[in-house]
Amino acid sequence: MNFNIVRCARVVLHVTNLEASRKFYVDTLGFIETEADSENLYLRGLEEHNHHSIHLKKAVKPAVEALSYKVASDAELDVIAEFFTEKGYKTKWIAEGKQLGLGRTLRVQDLSGLPLEFFAKMDHVERLLQRYDLYRGARIQRIDHFNCMVEDVEKAQHFYMNELGFACSEYTDTKKGEVWATWLHRKQTVHDQAFMNGVGPRVHHIGFWLPDPLALIHACDVLAASGYSKSIERGPGRHGLSNAFFLYLRDPDGHRIELYSGDYLTSDPDFKPIRWDVDDPMRQTFWGHAAPDCWFNEASTVLDVISGAEVPTKEPKLEKRKPEFII
Amino acid sequence: MNFNIVRCARVVLHVTNLEASRKFYVDTLGFIETEADSENLYLRGLEEHNHHSIHLKKAVKPAVEALSYKVASDAELDVIAEFFTEKGYKTKWIAEGKQLGLGRTLRVQDLSGLPLEFFAKMDHVERLLQRYDLYRGARIQRIDHFNCMVEDVEKAQHFYMNELGFACSEYTDTKKGEVWATWLHRKQTVHDQAFMNGVGPRVHHIGFWLPDPLALIHACDVLAASGYSKSIERGPGRHGLSNAFFLYLRDPDGHRIELYSGDYLTSDPDFKPIRWDVDDPMRQTFWGHAAPDCWFNEASTVLDVISGAEVPTKEPKLEKRKPEFII
Amino acid sequence: MNFNIVRCARVVLHVTNLEASRKFYVDTLGFIETEADSENLYLRGLEEHNHHSIHLKKAVKPAVEALSYKVASDAELDVIAEFFTEKGYKTKWIAEGKQLGLGRTLRVQDLSGLPLEFFAKMDHVERLLQRYDLYRGARIQRIDHFNCMVEDVEKAQHFYMNELGFACSEYTDTKKGEVWATWLHRKQTVHDQAFMNGVGPRVHHIGFWLPDPLALIHACDVLAASGYSKSIERGPGRHGLSNAFFLYLRDPDGHRIELYSGDYLTSDPDFKPIRWDVDDPMRQTFWGHAAPDCWFNEASTVLDVISGAEVPTKEPKLEKRKPEFII
Amino acid sequence: MNFNIVRCARVVLHVTNLEASRKFYVDTLGFIETEADSENLYLRGLEEHNHHSIHLKKAVKPAVEALSYKVASDAELDVIAEFFTEKGYKTKWIAEGKQLGLGRTLRVQDLSGLPLEFFAKMDHVERLLQRYDLYRGARIQRIDHFNCMVEDVEKAQHFYMNELGFACSEYTDTKKGEVWATWLHRKQTVHDQAFMNGVGPRVHHIGFWLPDPLALIHACDVLAASGYSKSIERGPGRHGLSNAFFLYLRDPDGHRIELYSGDYLTSDPDFKPIRWDVDDPMRQTFWGHAAPDCWFNEASTVLDVISGAEVPTKEPKLEKRKPEFII
Ligand SMILES: [Ca+2]
Ligand SMILES: [Fe+2]
Ligand SMILES: [Fe+2]
Ligand SMILES: [Fe+2]
Ligand SMILES: [Fe+2]
Repeated sequence: MNFNIVRCARVVLHVTNLEASRKFYVDTLGFIETEADSENLYLRGLEEHNHHSIHLKKAVKPAVEALSYKVASDAELDVIAEFFTEKGYKTKWIAEGKQLGLGRTLRVQDLSGLPLEFFAKMDHVERLLQRYDLYRGARIQRIDHFNCMVEDVEKAQHFYMNELGFACSEYTDTKKGEVWATWLHRKQTVHDQAFMNGVGPRVHHIGFWLPDPLALIHACDVLAASGYSKSIERGPGRHGLSNAFFLYLRDPDGHRIELYSGDYLTSDPDFKPIRWDVDDPMRQTFWGHAAPDCWFNEASTVLDVISGAEVPTKEPKLEKRKPEFII
Repeated sequence: MNFNIVRCARVVLHVTNLEASRKFYVDTLGFIETEADSENLYLRGLEEHNHHSIHLKKAVKPAVEALSYKVASDAELDVIAEFFTEKGYKTKWIAEGKQLGLGRTLRVQDLSGLPLEFFAKMDHVERLLQRYDLYRGARIQRIDHFNCMVEDVEKAQHFYMNELGFACSEYTDTKKGEVWATWLHRKQTVHDQAFMNGVGPRVHHIGFWLPDPLALIHACDVLAASGYSKSIERGPGRHGLSNAFFLYLRDPDGHRIELYSGDYLTSDPDFKPIRWDVDDPMRQTFWGHAAPDCWFNEASTVLDVISGAEVPTKEPKLEKRKPEFII
Repeated sequence: MNFNIVRCARVVLHVTNLEASRKFYVDTLGFIETEADSENLYLRGLEEHNHHSIHLKKAVKPAVEALSYKVASDAELDVIAEFFTEKGYKTKWIAEGKQLGLGRTLRVQDLSGLPLEFFAKMDHVERLLQRYDLYRGARIQRIDHFNCMVEDVEKAQHFYMNELGFACSEYTDTKKGEVWATWLHRKQTVHDQAFMNGVGPRVHHIGFWLPDPLALIHACDVLAASGYSKSIERGPGRHGLSNAFFLYLRDPDGHRIELYSGDYLTSDPDFKPIRWDVDDPMRQTFWGHAAPDCWFNEASTVLDVISGAEVPTKEPKLEKRKPEFII
Repeated sequence: MNFNIVRCARVVLHVTNLEASRKFYVDTLGFIETEADSENLYLRGLEEHNHHSIHLKKAVKPAVEALSYKVASDAELDVIAEFFTEKGYKTKWIAEGKQLGLGRTLRVQDLSGLPLEFFAKMDHVERLLQRYDLYRGARIQRIDHFNCMVEDVEKAQHFYMNELGFACSEYTDTKKGEVWATWLHRKQTVHDQAFMNGVGPRVHHIGFWLPDPLALIHACDVLAASGYSKSIERGPGRHGLSNAFFLYLRDPDGHRIELYSGDYLTSDPDFKPIRWDVDDPMRQTFWGHAAPDCWFNEASTVLDVISGAEVPTKEPKLEKRKPEFII
């Protein structure tokens, strides 16, 4: 391919109450607020030199408007547009200046119905990684990955690997060899994008990188002390898949956020993807803890890149498994 | 009173398979094995200068033979014996040399039916606190507390405070003022002995002190990697009561072990016991996580100090609460 | 003895600039400010239920006005007063209400010339241990110990153990058996009071308890980000003596503060004090790092309990050792 | 360029006593020993799926035989060979099977005189990242970077960036704009290769990645308990440059090893290299600690890729700075 997707880079979330979101993301989790107005909140992690990695937009209903990838150069956006247009996908350009801090972006509804975005340019802002005097809450460093539920994981995996240049680090399959979930990366971590079998297209969660396991534990303590104990949905625990230490939260609109720390380097082209059996309880949580039903069933609605309407969902191709057996 | 109980100091547990116990306690959790023979295993933590804090005895059925307290001097044992005898409790002396590493001990069946033991002298052994080259698994430093289910918590609390000199750090009661659970201490930590309302007398768990929260997380990782993920019953999490970081394990015989780190100093005579409402979900786990049913219902049988028979249990005085509302 | 000293409880420090002190102690280290006026700052740690453990007083020159111990009951103050008066020590009463938050106190110039204080009553305030939303900087939990340089350590140790009821946990001596430094406790930790051979009487440092080693590392990061890298004098490191993880800071007036975490339980009357040879480099820092000269030579002046004048110092009885060989 | 260097991947060190090396690297630091014979020791970190990242060779004198980079495909080795040969650099092929676990490799003496190696194929071995039961000592996950002293940093930086495709994350220069030290990467971390001004060519240290700061602190404790306190040369501390938590050790032959944890993602092509002034004390250690003289002056000799003789060193182009001012 003639384009180079660098990494997952930002998400555009619709939220119903910006003040409630600010209290959760900024005051409690410690995200840096780059800019804000009465309709928008732009947030970033401590090491991020780009303007934002979360754009929260005031809306009537919660939804995911875009999962946004950074590409290596502006010219590649045209190549990507042509690639998707030729294949018959819906695409849409948003001109530079229409979105705060961003150059022009390309929106695409992907094969699973997910609203992707690609951009090359975002305003640079001060990196606050060594402003330890500003550290609060969860010490979030950067956006790490998107995890989506889709109808057909195997088809999505095939497209992302063969057409978009992603590599697979780990995957779950059935004894018959049907891919149940897959972890795909462009940057050299375990993933930028994971897909799991489920009612989709929906966004299951957005993952953020933290420096160490104690930062996640402190996040739990701060959340509980701030009245957010009900926002802690699952964890903290150790993932079997990825080996990361994790915590799943639900924001005030129900969007799921993962705090995530400590996977491994995936730089090598000869790295062999790690297979997990869908019936292996340790892939879910290495320590054996089961995920709650809500973690298994609930996810965020995604929007049509052209109309802005909610994208209807379908039942997944593979049988649903009990939460005990789902990553 | 004319005796001075120093602290909870050791437990005598009946186990059915010493090799299985060694694999769990020594090879995986990293307890130091002071001595062993074909019928016994004597274990201690890294900072302990006494011969052992766990005595595992081979037996046909799992049970708790004794919860043992260290007192300040040998002469006090006679005072304690007289105290309990006069009040009509069953007592029994075990002569020096009959139990490995121990001076003479006094066994007493307490008001709730729990098998207590008192001793003043235990052999000194090398403290291994700075032998970091020997640290394995959970980095257990020392025994911290006993937690027991009893029929009448308020009565037990009254006896331990007024007759045995314990102080209360925290307690849970109903809106009517009935004491549901209580944390009592002689040493200057949150507790040596906790009582909770439940089918009793039974031993709910034995708590051990760890140096920091990451030691508990590493314990989970090591347990899972060693095939013990099913032994992790609850946690890791933050206690509301005590503020400690905790993890509950079940040993191969079902005895419950708590790994525990980070409570606070209770040296002050004017410290006001902290009250928690039995319906406050944060007392259980500060982060709001519910305990599983097994944690609520299962506990270890205790033995009669004279006959060695299992002590029959009774229903608790107060209504049982759903696990969501139990510490 | 007929009195019961509970623990080291507060320090009264003279400082020259309250705003500079507040920026260091409150804004950067995260002490809780209980109360303040134009001449005073009253600070406490996160678990402290007493009004303050540091009283900073505006003054022309830095000095230590009092090292203050809590005793078990008000009546014991009279016993202590009589005890010191009979032995010919200078004593002075300060009436209830003259010091904010405090009952009556007794001031005594001890045998080494140190300005002690004893009190039984201090106002209770909210414990903030579970207000994790307020945690900042170093997460200081409570005051832990005083460390003083005195002319004759052996004499001081003898008095504190035999007349005041302290126990020794660890000590350093020469091959001839001369005590070079000693760690003495009333509460069940390694120390409330340490003495080391040096130009004295002077206060070497005040130690505060932190929950875990990462809290000390975060303190370094926050100090550096806040412009206080020059305030970090020694560490972080592991003590040989006490096994605690430590960091030494100098406050804006040069008073030395130790952040300290993770020693061990000293509840047992039969605990054998641990001996270290004055020439063993690991007692200083377990990892072998040498302390800088300033740590060895500099300490805070103490004041006369009656006149308020600076107490003149004397050369120590034992030879000074190179910093490499001093704790 | 028509080749793609993936990452720094292994080092070949000459050591004088393999048993002493094993005790240090395997028994104490916890490296995994993949294979060994009487002349060689092959070691790897816990997440490494390649055969080894350290090859220790028994020799009469300590030296560095090769700094080895993994490339994306075997065919690229020919391109690299042609590139260096055309430019007049000494090159040498080592056939597959001549080095244990390795495909064919290309050795090159680079412009500074450093002995580089390139390879595409190394045998795969079991990744032990989730074998927490095997974790010991420092919990080393993988090789991270090489740091070398060279005569002319600016020239080396220019070559690595413009001819070999490295990107710069951070650098130090003088007020006149002379580059004093530089951090260059191929993989998406702060560096694979750093150069600093100094008597060269010499290898200053080899860096290894650890999961979190507590792993470094535990490494210090284990080293000290194992008799290696003199092997701790500098740290633990926080780097200004890279923001990583660090510890420098000297192995039994004097080779310097850095334990390193927690830098940041460098995936973005528009990341602006961070400049540090050579006189800024915080770049060295963020907390302001000075490095000892030995850290500044001592480094490992490197060998000629053809003759195996020691490569003679030259004085650096820029003035040496006092240790206080060197990274
Ligand atoms: Ca930690
Ligand atoms: Fe995730
Ligand atoms: Fe407990
Ligand atoms: Fe101290
Ligand atoms: Fe380095």
